[in-house]
Amino acid sequence: MIRVGVNGYGTIGKRVADAVAAQPDMALVGVAKTRPNYEAEAALRRGYDLHAAIAERADAFADAGIDLAGDLDDLIEASDVVVDCCPAGIGERNRARYAAHDTPAILQGGEAADVADVSFNARANYEAVRDSDAESARVVSCNTTALSRVLAPLEEEYGVEKARVTLIRRGGDPAETDRGPINDVVPDPVSIPSHHGPDVNTVLPGIAVDTLAVKAPVTRMHTHGLNVTLESTPEAGAVRDLLEAESRVFVIPEGAGVDGGGALKDYAMDAGRPRGDLWENCVWGESIQLQGSDLYLFENVHQEADVVPENVDAIRALATDVPAVESVARTDESLGVGLESLLAEPSTGTGLVTADD
Amino acid sequence: MIRVGVNGYGTIGKRVADAVAAQPDMALVGVAKTRPNYEAEAALRRGYDLHAAIAERADAFADAGIDLAGDLDDLIEASDVVVDCCPAGIGERNRARYAAHDTPAILQGGEAADVADVSFNARANYEAVRDSDAESARVVSCNTTALSRVLAPLEEEYGVEKARVTLIRRGGDPAETDRGPINDVVPDPVSIPSHHGPDVNTVLPGIAVDTLAVKAPVTRMHTHGLNVTLESTPEAGAVRDLLEAESRVFVIPEGAGVDGGGALKDYAMDAGRPRGDLWENCVWGESIQLQGSDLYLFENVHQEADVVPENVDAIRALATDVPAVESVARTDESLGVGLESLLAEPSTGTGLVTADD
Repeated sequence: MIRVGVNGYGTIGKRVADAVAAQPDMALVGVAKTRPNYEAEAALRRGYDLHAAIAERADAFADAGIDLAGDLDDLIEASDVVVDCCPAGIGERNRARYAAHDTPAILQGGEAADVADVSFNARANYEAVRDSDAESARVVSCNTTALSRVLAPLEEEYGVEKARVTLIRRGGDPAETDRGPINDVVPDPVSIPSHHGPDVNTVLPGIAVDTLAVKAPVTRMHTHGLNVTLESTPEAGAVRDLLEAESRVFVIPEGAGVDGGGALKDYAMDAGRPRGDLWENCVWGESIQLQGSDLYLFENVHQEADVVPENVDAIRALATDVPAVESVARTDESLGVGLESLLAEPSTGTGLVTADD
Repeated sequence: MIRVGVNGYGTIGKRVADAVAAQPDMALVGVAKTRPNYEAEAALRRGYDLHAAIAERADAFADAGIDLAGDLDDLIEASDVVVDCCPAGIGERNRARYAAHDTPAILQGGEAADVADVSFNARANYEAVRDSDAESARVVSCNTTALSRVLAPLEEEYGVEKARVTLIRRGGDPAETDRGPINDVVPDPVSIPSHHGPDVNTVLPGIAVDTLAVKAPVTRMHTHGLNVTLESTPEAGAVRDLLEAESRVFVIPEGAGVDGGGALKDYAMDAGRPRGDLWENCVWGESIQLQGSDLYLFENVHQEADVVPENVDAIRALATDVPAVESVARTDESLGVGLESLLAEPSTGTGLVTADD
């Protein structure tokens, strides 16, 4: 049983905690939180031990009627692995604290790549991380995770000559009322390429990939427009089959009537997903098109959810000798990753989809 | 056992079907749907019998790999009560069909008030409807439902001299990608008052209420700004206590950090609510303020969810002699209506909240 502590209990932390608690080979020691807000209720309802992430603020929890199990150092000491789910930049400051307890740590993709000994994506480099002597691993960001899940099988099957990706990023998460933009699309960063391409190379070093990123006034999901120039010229249907075989890629069937992030989240909620989470890349089936060796597709990425199974696998990669295929299968089985539509899928089109204007 | 059919399986219909299936005294006969889209998957996953709402389109279901249990007339005939959850205006067209089968029908608030024998809200007029000889009832709209739930107890406890309400309505539901506005606030209707006030009077005839409505570029929830001039001058804390005692009103505690519809939905999903549904009016605790006999408050209303328990109660009001208090308790218990925060609630403020600018 791997004893896991989760430091930071916001958007990612509360989901990672639930995912850890669902694993047959892990025990959730507890979670650390800075404030007794509504997310603390989620922990209370689930019976998780709460720790004050900032010891000086323990009184605020008492005022809110919450009994604490201890402070952050207690949590780190009691854990075999700590998953740091703090806001970007805080993980860097926490790093020495984990090291002081000799506790291996998982950090998130909002941190710089050098925050940890290695970067991690289950599809790309699980066994390289497992076989290394790394004491810490950084799960690459939601966007980089999604790109790695698509580029890895394409590289293996067809060879990737070059990938060019435009990322239309969500401006903030649903509860982040102070984020923007509210009526604009903002190149971010305006310098090209964005960091996402190099970030893919931290887990898939061999692949040429340029990325451009903008922020849009949406909160549900990121949208990626992918162009991947392949080293061969497969049929669109074959690429679709390849992607459908990936458990963490969901190919949206044409007839489903799912035309945007709102419908996708509605779909997830209809399917009974906790918090409406979409752990998988969501690729529009009819968008998968080949123009010669140029592959195109649209995919949506649920920024709150897609890294959650990756964090679970990262724990096993750091703390066990479980093979990649077994860890991924165990994670997927316990969470229910691998959305399959019950609707029959019409035959794949072959024409190139072009914009109306 | 009341046999219930649901005609229309979109935003409201799929939720009403789940709610009916959860009742100890009801059996869901099946649901009727026009198209085999992603929402049909929700029905398939739950094992509900699907009926073609439009017999000529049955082939589309076969093409999507879906076996139909029959057509709409089969469903109506097999049901003791039909709940019509079709888009606004379609219920009016369906009305004669239900009557032809002598099947009592529930219709939705998007229809005109004269679509049914009576209008219905469980808090306002359950027993009047039950004791009438009505063969059909219209559950008033999401906004009117929410207003009725607050005005009924205020009228009973303090007397309402006049209510003045501004409704900031969501532009569309999350999956409705063709709805607007996208960057505007649109008076809708621009004529004042809006229909909502008169609609309240279909279930609470004695209350003076004027309503103004605008549409805003949001999809999650409606927001209401209420002013209710009372016939007495209670303390804010007493009004808060009164509202907290209503099972279908959730008073958001000050310390929860819930500052908008995004956080509210996140809260609901953390609480494990199916589809993140908020069946309750969500009133901001600190917004409940008195200025003399003028009560003010802000509330949010989840347009996809708040009428769902009302539909369940409307079925009992039409088909049984169950008392209101028992029906509401049974509905609330079976669905889990009645959100209570686990966080301690600070004392209620007494100053008038004013805008910054």
